[in-house]
Amino acid sequence: MKAARLNAIHSPLQLEDVPLPPMDPPHRVRVKLQAAALNHRDVWIQKGQYAAIVTPVTLGSDGCGVREDNGEPVIINPGSHWGPDERVQSLAYTILGMPDDGTLAECVSVPADRLHPKPPHLSAEEAAALPLAGLTAWRALCVRGAARPGDRVFVNGIGGGVAWFCMQFALALGCQVYVSSSSEEKLAEARAAGAHGAVNYRQPGIFKELAAHNELFDVIVDSAGGEPFAQLLFIAAPGARIVTYGGTLGKITQLSPQIIFWKQLSILGSTMGSDADFAAMLDFVNRHQIRPRIARIFPLEEAQAAMDFLAYGAQIGKVVVRIA
Amino acid sequence: MKAARLNAIHSPLQLEDVPLPPMDPPHRVRVKLQAAALNHRDVWIQKGQYAAIVTPVTLGSDGCGVREDNGEPVIINPGSHWGPDERVQSLAYTILGMPDDGTLAECVSVPADRLHPKPPHLSAEEAAALPLAGLTAWRALCVRGAARPGDRVFVNGIGGGVAWFCMQFALALGCQVYVSSSSEEKLAEARAAGAHGAVNYRQPGIFKELAAHNELFDVIVDSAGGEPFAQLLFIAAPGARIVTYGGTLGKITQLSPQIIFWKQLSILGSTMGSDADFAAMLDFVNRHQIRPRIARIFPLEEAQAAMDFLAYGAQIGKVVVRIA
Repeated sequence: MKAARLNAIHSPLQLEDVPLPPMDPPHRVRVKLQAAALNHRDVWIQKGQYAAIVTPVTLGSDGCGVREDNGEPVIINPGSHWGPDERVQSLAYTILGMPDDGTLAECVSVPADRLHPKPPHLSAEEAAALPLAGLTAWRALCVRGAARPGDRVFVNGIGGGVAWFCMQFALALGCQVYVSSSSEEKLAEARAAGAHGAVNYRQPGIFKELAAHNELFDVIVDSAGGEPFAQLLFIAAPGARIVTYGGTLGKITQLSPQIIFWKQLSILGSTMGSDADFAAMLDFVNRHQIRPRIARIFPLEEAQAAMDFLAYGAQIGKVVVRIA
Repeated sequence: MKAARLNAIHSPLQLEDVPLPPMDPPHRVRVKLQAAALNHRDVWIQKGQYAAIVTPVTLGSDGCGVREDNGEPVIINPGSHWGPDERVQSLAYTILGMPDDGTLAECVSVPADRLHPKPPHLSAEEAAALPLAGLTAWRALCVRGAARPGDRVFVNGIGGGVAWFCMQFALALGCQVYVSSSSEEKLAEARAAGAHGAVNYRQPGIFKELAAHNELFDVIVDSAGGEPFAQLLFIAAPGARIVTYGGTLGKITQLSPQIIFWKQLSILGSTMGSDADFAAMLDFVNRHQIRPRIARIFPLEEAQAAMDFLAYGAQIGKVVVRIA
């Protein structure tokens, strides 16, 4: 079968013929993939910015396809071995697509309990866009952030796959949703998708201005960290949950403990999600007929171009790879 | 009656004769005080480091005495108007002892629903030492920190009233408790009181050393903030709760978002506590026969000396003022 292989860090993905992966039904089954989707994790692995990288490997955590043993259309829960503690993943936790070969290939072999029925309302490309980003958004917003109908939600940095899902899920939940970006295009797209407010975080003093107009939020999700993070405290409502699932801008500085304790704020780390989180997310997506937003679809032959497109960061929504 | 009055910020407390406070039983009752206790709040008000200070006023949030209307020995819940949201106090929340006249007086008048039976196993001085610090410790450790039997608990900066209660409550809960201080005397006293571990935070690299020996903690309580706070992430177990209830060292810097999200940590602000928290704390103290630790007892005539002693910060446990 064909697979887009990473043979060493810093080398481009290469489309190669590789042996079909093993299967052992009903425990371990092979899925013939129709579509995969990329995550920043794939880019970071290629750039060597990840712990314990093993090559050669087929990257790709997200996939939609057909079970070889029974023909059922499925999507894959990319996380394995979360463990018994809903609070945190176990040391054995792994994500599909390194060290195990992932979904940028014509087939992938996974334990059968990682498979879930493909949401019927979605195309294969849309369904492939859902798993890892949808799971991460669900846990951040709904489990850690405990967003509830009527809550005011602020998604800091709209555009990426997880952030867009956070906005979609919060809107479907019945929250008042604000987003931020430095891109006016992304802000306009978010407004068009239903966001109640959209602000440019490059605008000086914007967070203090929101607070001065009593625009405060019960749940704030952020994946940047860094110096700007401290300003999120200003727009946090009393009792708010500020969830961080990334740190592209580095360390968080200048956090006021007085604001944190007086407002009884919670700053909550979140990454990926448990099997229960995945099942809840999928149920929510089906009930609310949520459609993942696809930024662009690349053929498997252009997997490296898809990676470069994601790394560039101008996309809105998920970068998908069509396989069959 | 006699009261230790603060007539203006930066002026010493003055023992004065003032009119008896009003009462309106059964709604508002007068308590003849036997003992009061001090909190840093009193010192900060005197130093002008508090919002919306009103003088002249009788300071003091903690008190134990006898109800004038029925002779029942009582302690006072110093918080009023928490409001309906257990997550956070309402804007109407106040603490006894500014703006309302407090307990550094022969009598205090409070709404009857602020009164609770004095724990029978305690002296009046011990009972007076309990309310505000015990409430703050309870919410930080058990409500926000969700400490459970068997958890490993780290109390950063042992010695003050709240920190000492955190240690006592955690020990009574059946936790493994470590404490830190820069004072070898305080560390020795904590060990003598049952702490399983006691480390000097001035020792270079101590937090990384603990982590290297896999000494990790499920609940960490801190009231300093500042630059050292970031090191608490090293000793946080996966899924840990780090509770901050103070910020004497100023802003928190250099927090790694990667550690926060990968370990799924929760950094939780906590201040005072709700009526439900107070009732739960009091029930716990009674069931476990916990005795507040008293650093020193001053007569009401020496209330200013008691304030200075607290401000100096060398004490272990609560500073109490005996009134009758």
